[in-house]
Amino acid sequence: MSYHKPEAKAIQELKDIAQRLRIHSITSTQASKSGHPTSCSSIAEIMSVLFFNTMRLNLKFPRDPSSDRFVLSKGHAAPILYAAWAEAGLFPVEELQNLRKIDSDLEGHPTPRLNFIDVGTGSLGQGVAVAAGMAYVGKNFDKADYRTYVVVGDGESAEGSIWESLHFAGHYKLDNLCVVFDVNRLGQSEPTSLQHQMDVYRKRLEAFGFHALVVDGHDVEELCKAFYEASSTKNKPTAIIAKTFKGKFFPNIEDLDNWHGKPLGDKANEVIKHLQGLMMDSSDRPAALAPQTPTKSKPAPPVDITNVKLASPPAYKLGEQVATRLAYGTALAKLAQSNDRVIALDGDTKNSTFSDKLKKAFPERYIECFIAEQNLVGVAIGAACRDRTIAFASTFATFFTRAFDQIRMGAISQTNVNFAGSHCGVSIGEDGPSQMGLEDVAMFRTVPGSTVFYPSDAVSCERAVELAANTKGVCFIRTSRPNTAVLYDNNEPFVIGKGKVVKQSANDQVLLIGAGVTLYECLAAAAELEKAGVHARVIDPFTVKPLDADLIVEHGRACGGRVVVVEDHYQQGGLGEAVLSALATHRDFAVKHLYVPGVPRSGPPTVLLDMFGVSARHVVEAANAVLKL
Amino acid sequence: MSYHKPEAKAIQELKDIAQRLRIHSITSTQASKSGHPTSCSSIAEIMSVLFFNTMRLNLKFPRDPSSDRFVLSKGHAAPILYAAWAEAGLFPVEELQNLRKIDSDLEGHPTPRLNFIDVGTGSLGQGVAVAAGMAYVGKNFDKADYRTYVVVGDGESAEGSIWESLHFAGHYKLDNLCVVFDVNRLGQSEPTSLQHQMDVYRKRLEAFGFHALVVDGHDVEELCKAFYEASSTKNKPTAIIAKTFKGKFFPNIEDLDNWHGKPLGDKANEVIKHLQGLMMDSSDRPAALAPQTPTKSKPAPPVDITNVKLASPPAYKLGEQVATRLAYGTALAKLAQSNDRVIALDGDTKNSTFSDKLKKAFPERYIECFIAEQNLVGVAIGAACRDRTIAFASTFATFFTRAFDQIRMGAISQTNVNFAGSHCGVSIGEDGPSQMGLEDVAMFRTVPGSTVFYPSDAVSCERAVELAANTKGVCFIRTSRPNTAVLYDNNEPFVIGKGKVVKQSANDQVLLIGAGVTLYECLAAAAELEKAGVHARVIDPFTVKPLDADLIVEHGRACGGRVVVVEDHYQQGGLGEAVLSALATHRDFAVKHLYVPGVPRSGPPTVLLDMFGVSARHVVEAANAVLKL
Repeated sequence: MSYHKPEAKAIQELKDIAQRLRIHSITSTQASKSGHPTSCSSIAEIMSVLFFNTMRLNLKFPRDPSSDRFVLSKGHAAPILYAAWAEAGLFPVEELQNLRKIDSDLEGHPTPRLNFIDVGTGSLGQGVAVAAGMAYVGKNFDKADYRTYVVVGDGESAEGSIWESLHFAGHYKLDNLCVVFDVNRLGQSEPTSLQHQMDVYRKRLEAFGFHALVVDGHDVEELCKAFYEASSTKNKPTAIIAKTFKGKFFPNIEDLDNWHGKPLGDKANEVIKHLQGLMMDSSDRPAALAPQTPTKSKPAPPVDITNVKLASPPAYKLGEQVATRLAYGTALAKLAQSNDRVIALDGDTKNSTFSDKLKKAFPERYIECFIAEQNLVGVAIGAACRDRTIAFASTFATFFTRAFDQIRMGAISQTNVNFAGSHCGVSIGEDGPSQMGLEDVAMFRTVPGSTVFYPSDAVSCERAVELAANTKGVCFIRTSRPNTAVLYDNNEPFVIGKGKVVKQSANDQVLLIGAGVTLYECLAAAAELEKAGVHARVIDPFTVKPLDADLIVEHGRACGGRVVVVEDHYQQGGLGEAVLSALATHRDFAVKHLYVPGVPRSGPPTVLLDMFGVSARHVVEAANAVLKL
Repeated sequence: MSYHKPEAKAIQELKDIAQRLRIHSITSTQASKSGHPTSCSSIAEIMSVLFFNTMRLNLKFPRDPSSDRFVLSKGHAAPILYAAWAEAGLFPVEELQNLRKIDSDLEGHPTPRLNFIDVGTGSLGQGVAVAAGMAYVGKNFDKADYRTYVVVGDGESAEGSIWESLHFAGHYKLDNLCVVFDVNRLGQSEPTSLQHQMDVYRKRLEAFGFHALVVDGHDVEELCKAFYEASSTKNKPTAIIAKTFKGKFFPNIEDLDNWHGKPLGDKANEVIKHLQGLMMDSSDRPAALAPQTPTKSKPAPPVDITNVKLASPPAYKLGEQVATRLAYGTALAKLAQSNDRVIALDGDTKNSTFSDKLKKAFPERYIECFIAEQNLVGVAIGAACRDRTIAFASTFATFFTRAFDQIRMGAISQTNVNFAGSHCGVSIGEDGPSQMGLEDVAMFRTVPGSTVFYPSDAVSCERAVELAANTKGVCFIRTSRPNTAVLYDNNEPFVIGKGKVVKQSANDQVLLIGAGVTLYECLAAAAELEKAGVHARVIDPFTVKPLDADLIVEHGRACGGRVVVVEDHYQQGGLGEAVLSALATHRDFAVKHLYVPGVPRSGPPTVLLDMFGVSARHVVEAANAVLKL
């Protein structure tokens, strides 16, 4: 199939649509008195051609798994994206005037509250990773015809995350991915560092494995041809590097500084008139072109990612020494056995996190993301879109801090990605503080709607993996490096938000709460206290978020309101503060909180636990102290 | 000055030193039973040439501001870095056997606990940013001869942060920076994506503005020449792309998979014998070469960054409406007026954070980092090393999540960088959730040794900036977008860890704690409660970390233990949980915590504050509820 350029009439209509999109961007930001009309204007022809010439969309069901994907990485250009869908007929163009209003889902930056948005954007530099995840799924799992398009601003192309993702797309030869760079020369506060050096962009993209085309981003004919070339290029993703102007066709605004993020104010009417003058037909009639519909040849197959179970239950002996990170890998492989849409992604730590267990069992369902955690998270979010996969992304717990912004945006994107962070706390030992997850619980707890699992043994860890696969929202599973004893029977049921009382007697005087390695320190402390005639109860919370507040209140109260919480984590935002939040409105509780008080160092795990105040000895001391409160 | 190659004897000695470094890397990791000898081996010749031929070092004072900088971005090769300094004579080689021991500062990954380390490394992909910051200071502020070297692993070059920094170095023509890529082909769990495709590296680096040289990384002669070429290249940083082999010269280990992060165990002796056989002189004598000393021609000038004051005190009228972000910019410019080492860095948001006030006053002291927050933070950390500058890095509060890993490592690096995050909370309004800082306090609170300022008015914000400049460790200043009333007299003194009681009466029944916009909601609520005959006391904490626990306990107790905390932040890890931590061991307190409960949306600030439960109306309700507890 060779390229036939659109007829002159269609070309003219695409030009007119671009102007209509510009006008909508102006009027909607006038109505909201805020927004980014000049950032919209630079991509007006790109949006017109994508929506009315190139992309295959289903207006009845915008999230049709067989339709093309579109990600607006430069999310602040939301008004023109909304305008494109409205002009395509998804909703009345009048609604565009509700932009940014409290009761409209046409927010300042796109979110999936809108049925035509897959992921939230607005924190820059994240769109390519998500699009690459979608494209990877399309090519390798769905093996379908749909293509993925992402529009990137030139300002945001300074984000390293973009280059991680470009490298990923090039490495995996994602020829169903097309990345459009809107090189409009101007950032928020000054010109971009590369301005209109189109050749620099081209060289970089070619070096990163792309078929790179420099085009005039305001020439609809050239754009039609470039997108065709992209779709017919094999074994390489395509980058369309569009030379554009910010505020294009806005007299006395185009290509000028100090117009970022500002409605046109009293210049709006004059600009709109000018734009209408550029149109063949500036009447209010609907667009004469409609988006193409999805191809029937290779649609996305139906998938079911609900109600996923471990292929076999946990199989451990009580007391057996097993690291939870190992149980994670075991469970992941068992989960994958029972549903072929369970996938794993890792950043070259698979032999430490044990995600390699899935790779060994199902090599084609493992995505190696190399040492690039931002892209790892973004690809996972993209892969999980439209419920195409159940994605598990793993690395060292602390290295997820590298992708906090992506995870935060994941919540806005309503993602269901599951994260597994290994090597938490000082208990990793000699590798030292740079490798220790000591803020990961705090980070994942802040994520709206998240579930934070902190399994203490292999049985509960396997169940955590199973529960995570079936739970909406961001899930985080914190796993530990050292071996720990199996505490629970293989049949023990686990529920999100329900903790376990692992030791109790009728006349307990103090409640100890620990998780992971510190649960064992609590048990050792309880045994020690027992010798001195002090009876301690011990709780394993299982999930830190939601935390089983009722259980803690009930048993804390039974222990006279005396509570010790101990965690292999910094003081802030972890298990301890979660317990304090659970007890906030309850008077008559006194809580001693043990945590890692500062930057740790290299040394043997048990020595570090003791040196940094979270060993059994310290729990005993804290328990004795809290008895006096 | 043209290149004279070293004499044959020196070349041979450099080769021998490389082998000695290899042997130390093997024996020290044998002693610690953990570590990365193969990752050391690939850079043995690079380290030998850098330390004994190229770099200018001061062994009496390793942090001499005039000496060359060296950053080992691939921090897991720490053993060979320690070995190089020991062989150079800084400390006895015998000490290398204490690697990773609990009482040794020779940790698993380098930290500035060692006097020859400027920054902690070990979380990959961060070294180039730090080195670029050092080089920027050397070229533009110190205007000195010292050069900066950074060794990057090929695995970590997948990190986007590296490419942000390479772009930065290229853009600012940092010809005093030399980035060495150790392309040893193997990652942790499998070969790197590019393996030995040296040409791809070269093309990428050239496209990113580097003078790029591909060399045999095990050829000391070639390395000597390449480093000379780097030092004589003007207007461009140089990248030395070294083709190396992991485990080089380790028979049956070299270039083989599955040898990452493992001591050689029972193969060690055989390998050491083999290495000795490759040496001209394998005796235990000290190295026959010594590092060069710093040049005298253009030394780094003396600087004093202590006791920095605002050039003039705050100058506001009580009740005047001023955004704290604006006061931040004002204070920054005044601080810069009184000390020429005060600098500002921003990520193309300077007209929103108001860091542009410093740029306007002192253009040469502002570093534009464009939209690349990881590099922004890394450059700031590098710029602050060896006390060369007082660095203030700013962007939207939530965009610092992009650099959480860098900030976390900043604490390990003992950095004194000050961060200012604007646009916190739902009070930013229509831009929507992607732009709202709602987890920033939680994030910065987890950073060991950090100080978290949350000034509520312009006067306290100016003082926060002044205090931050004089405070060790990571400082974070949270600023707000909306205008708020000036509450404090221009002469009001502010102290870290000391809050202010902003409203009280003799018979208060409930204590309200708010910060930023919510402090005003507390004041409005108190006025409302007063009408209903309920007396409320109000506290402005000023710093969330350290929090003024004594003040809260004292006044909370005076209010019958009834406390309401309200914050424009998510529930976890913010002001509320800080208050709960402060009250943890105190019985007889009941705390109601108001926070943003989920992903917000676009809308007017005041509507959002009310919709998400943190407005005065909700404070009144909470106060009434807590009266019953």
